[in-house]
Amino acid sequence: MKRGLYVGRFQPFHNGHKAVIDLLCDEVDELIIGIGSAQMSHDIRHPFTAGERVLMIQRVLADAKIPVYIIPLEDIKRNALWVAHVVSMVPPFDVVYTSNPLVIRLFTEAGFRVESPPMYQRQELSGTAIRQKMLEGGDWKQYVPEKVAAVIESVGGVERIRDISRTDE
Amino acid sequence: MKRGLYVGRFQPFHNGHKAVIDLLCDEVDELIIGIGSAQMSHDIRHPFTAGERVLMIQRVLADAKIPVYIIPLEDIKRNALWVAHVVSMVPPFDVVYTSNPLVIRLFTEAGFRVESPPMYQRQELSGTAIRQKMLEGGDWKQYVPEKVAAVIESVGGVERIRDISRTDE
Amino acid sequence: MKRGLYVGRFQPFHNGHKAVIDLLCDEVDELIIGIGSAQMSHDIRHPFTAGERVLMIQRVLADAKIPVYIIPLEDIKRNALWVAHVVSMVPPFDVVYTSNPLVIRLFTEAGFRVESPPMYQRQELSGTAIRQKMLEGGDWKQYVPEKVAAVIESVGGVERIRDISRTDE
Amino acid sequence: MKRGLYVGRFQPFHNGHKAVIDLLCDEVDELIIGIGSAQMSHDIRHPFTAGERVLMIQRVLADAKIPVYIIPLEDIKRNALWVAHVVSMVPPFDVVYTSNPLVIRLFTEAGFRVESPPMYQRQELSGTAIRQKMLEGGDWKQYVPEKVAAVIESVGGVERIRDISRTDE
Amino acid sequence: MKRGLYVGRFQPFHNGHKAVIDLLCDEVDELIIGIGSAQMSHDIRHPFTAGERVLMIQRVLADAKIPVYIIPLEDIKRNALWVAHVVSMVPPFDVVYTSNPLVIRLFTEAGFRVESPPMYQRQELSGTAIRQKMLEGGDWKQYVPEKVAAVIESVGGVERIRDISRTDE
Amino acid sequence: MKRGLYVGRFQPFHNGHKAVIDLLCDEVDELIIGIGSAQMSHDIRHPFTAGERVLMIQRVLADAKIPVYIIPLEDIKRNALWVAHVVSMVPPFDVVYTSNPLVIRLFTEAGFRVESPPMYQRQELSGTAIRQKMLEGGDWKQYVPEKVAAVIESVGGVERIRDISRTDE
Repeated sequence: MKRGLYVGRFQPFHNGHKAVIDLLCDEVDELIIGIGSAQMSHDIRHPFTAGERVLMIQRVLADAKIPVYIIPLEDIKRNALWVAHVVSMVPPFDVVYTSNPLVIRLFTEAGFRVESPPMYQRQELSGTAIRQKMLEGGDWKQYVPEKVAAVIESVGGVERIRDISRTDE
Repeated sequence: MKRGLYVGRFQPFHNGHKAVIDLLCDEVDELIIGIGSAQMSHDIRHPFTAGERVLMIQRVLADAKIPVYIIPLEDIKRNALWVAHVVSMVPPFDVVYTSNPLVIRLFTEAGFRVESPPMYQRQELSGTAIRQKMLEGGDWKQYVPEKVAAVIESVGGVERIRDISRTDE
Repeated sequence: MKRGLYVGRFQPFHNGHKAVIDLLCDEVDELIIGIGSAQMSHDIRHPFTAGERVLMIQRVLADAKIPVYIIPLEDIKRNALWVAHVVSMVPPFDVVYTSNPLVIRLFTEAGFRVESPPMYQRQELSGTAIRQKMLEGGDWKQYVPEKVAAVIESVGGVERIRDISRTDE
Repeated sequence: MKRGLYVGRFQPFHNGHKAVIDLLCDEVDELIIGIGSAQMSHDIRHPFTAGERVLMIQRVLADAKIPVYIIPLEDIKRNALWVAHVVSMVPPFDVVYTSNPLVIRLFTEAGFRVESPPMYQRQELSGTAIRQKMLEGGDWKQYVPEKVAAVIESVGGVERIRDISRTDE
Repeated sequence: MKRGLYVGRFQPFHNGHKAVIDLLCDEVDELIIGIGSAQMSHDIRHPFTAGERVLMIQRVLADAKIPVYIIPLEDIKRNALWVAHVVSMVPPFDVVYTSNPLVIRLFTEAGFRVESPPMYQRQELSGTAIRQKMLEGGDWKQYVPEKVAAVIESVGGVERIRDISRTDE
Repeated sequence: MKRGLYVGRFQPFHNGHKAVIDLLCDEVDELIIGIGSAQMSHDIRHPFTAGERVLMIQRVLADAKIPVYIIPLEDIKRNALWVAHVVSMVPPFDVVYTSNPLVIRLFTEAGFRVESPPMYQRQELSGTAIRQKMLEGGDWKQYVPEKVAAVIESVGGVERIRDISRTDE
């Protein structure tokens, strides 16, 4: 049995994440999705709580064809301990999927197998770009699964981002 | 739609937990299982990591008839903030199921609806009693689902408990 | 001008604290009251929040004849840093009033002048004894100022103590 | 009885803060002043300790016509918990006065009533502008109450700001 | 080259520690001494600061025949991260020397080689026993190297232990 | 006896540090070297772990003519407590050597004697400049002692810096 770990911040979960996960579901028998910076919310780069992100992902993956574990991961502000932290919080895994160079480096130094999944339309499909669209009143919904848009609307996500963007320091 | 929250430490997940969850699956449309003291492991009262406990629970509930969210919850050592912490980490919920008087008090003061599920054979079906059996070489397996026993054996859980019980302070 | 610091946990503020403060008001020109373990609440030894304790004290000292500063102090779990923590959180002071041997030791090692105020009817007038009375349904009100009793009742303090005392671990 | 909460960092307390508080004293029966980022000091944006800021404010409000509570609030680096933290540290309040969009958002999501007081000569009356004047040797004293200037001078505040501004990283 | 790690709390450093280190100096080329619970001080079980313990050890080992590294290690309250924490704080090592069952377990699970050194007169030569002697006015000096006794006296260690032992909760 | 404290981050330890220490060895009887931001590693400004930095320094100072203490110091994110933190972690000292204005200010406010050692070729001999050379493939080895270069190479330091520099946020 092969279990994979895929880590992201998912602020918000978008079509690029979905495409990667669709691919991974063909490669592994079980998939762990780690939600990074779980303790962050209500700021420009991290507007959504961990609970809201769990909801987005579970909704989209409700009928995934393999078992999926969705685990919030609070930050450890010490890079040297981060791999041990992740290992303690999720079921055992055989391979890590990530494109983040620091995450690659940390898991590689710790002896894990790491692979970089392809990234889709990285220009538009990035959390930063989508949050910017939300802020400016652009059409952000085209970049996220329908069920994610529904979650964002149910928590007043667009208004939240606009409010917190006006914070003066 | 009604979503319920059930919080426990699950050290380990046992037949009493399973019986409660079976009941709750008839009462709610979706169930959140919060794994308390997620950051603890390798001590007498908390031998298993959060990841190991996630694995136990997901294995047992693999074919639950309603959607189940399994969320590790690290401790916040400030009771006055604990409800806000839980709310930020899990999807929105309508009712809390717990028998712990402090948890009842905290959620009640915060205005949540709280219900106490029945407890089954509380004498034998407690984490403390089961860990004691493991320590003494008793028959602990009768108290936990088969899949939980398999997880515990795969991580050398009984040896771990025995080793750490000998720690001299 | 002489400014004094008096530190306690005030769980709850009682007649013994009041008697000490009455004496101190004759000795100093301004008095700082530091509320220790400010972050604790909702447990047996620390049932009240810092905000509730601030309210108790300010109500009782509303017409003190000297200026009084009431400052919550969160714990620093490192004794070697505690004096520096207190110094950073309160206005400058000339003398510390306390009967706690650890606090005496820490301030003395740091070069401060420390005095021990007399304690009144220490047997009955202790937070532990009063919390015990609350738990058992005894007459706790005789040991606290009337205005403190009013605050405790307004937050359901007795029910809170009873609820949390039943917590099973 | 109506109790209001006014939160700021007060680095330093200036005439704009004083003008807002004068207004609020006509609107509420009791006023809580929360000193944000209480644990910060000795950096460019937070030169003064919480204790020094308590002293500034108490000196200025010594003869306020309503009861005033001055409470240092240490940061919680988790926005989702911040309201619960404030609620636990201060007496109960009916309305929050703030112009900070994040604070407005957080208290509003938590169901509190929030009002924005007018801001006076925001250009000159800002902590940033006044700290800049101190650094450059400009006339900062015209922007703060006389008693605040006295506190700043007694702790060598201007020299402190100049020293720490030269820190090289 | 073989580098060993020896971890203890050294409250205080005593003849038993010295005897173990003498043995280890024959087995390894370089020795790392990790001072556990470095952040603790001024309580009954941890009377001495990390700095005082560094001084005790360096004095005794001033003319050790191999290079010795003395490294304070602050606690990480998460057993699952502790090995990673130690690894990040000390130079690379080949073998761990310890008699503590938890430490043995944690390093063994992490794949390290662990050995248990013999313990000398464990009854008398324990920190607990020696601190008790200090408290009771017994002859504690016979159990520690002369240079350790000198450090303890220079910081008023015996008075400190007596003072903090009287702390009432 | 005169004991001096010299604090730096040593990312990495370079010839400028070595030159300062050579001078200090003539001025004091014992030297403490505090490794600041000990808990940081694997980021652009802090590529090396505390353990790696201890190794660099001990190798270079193996035959120093006076006793040298090398102590990792984890950050305390509260300037007002930092001096107390350092004091608790290292042996007692008589004078602090540093060129950092914040460190000068903090120790001076706490009543310590502080001196600024001369800095050598500050342009080239800075951690920032040397890390930049490593990143760009320049000749960084001329700026560090030979034994430091050996440690950096043994841990793959140059590759590490390049990997983490590519991290996208």
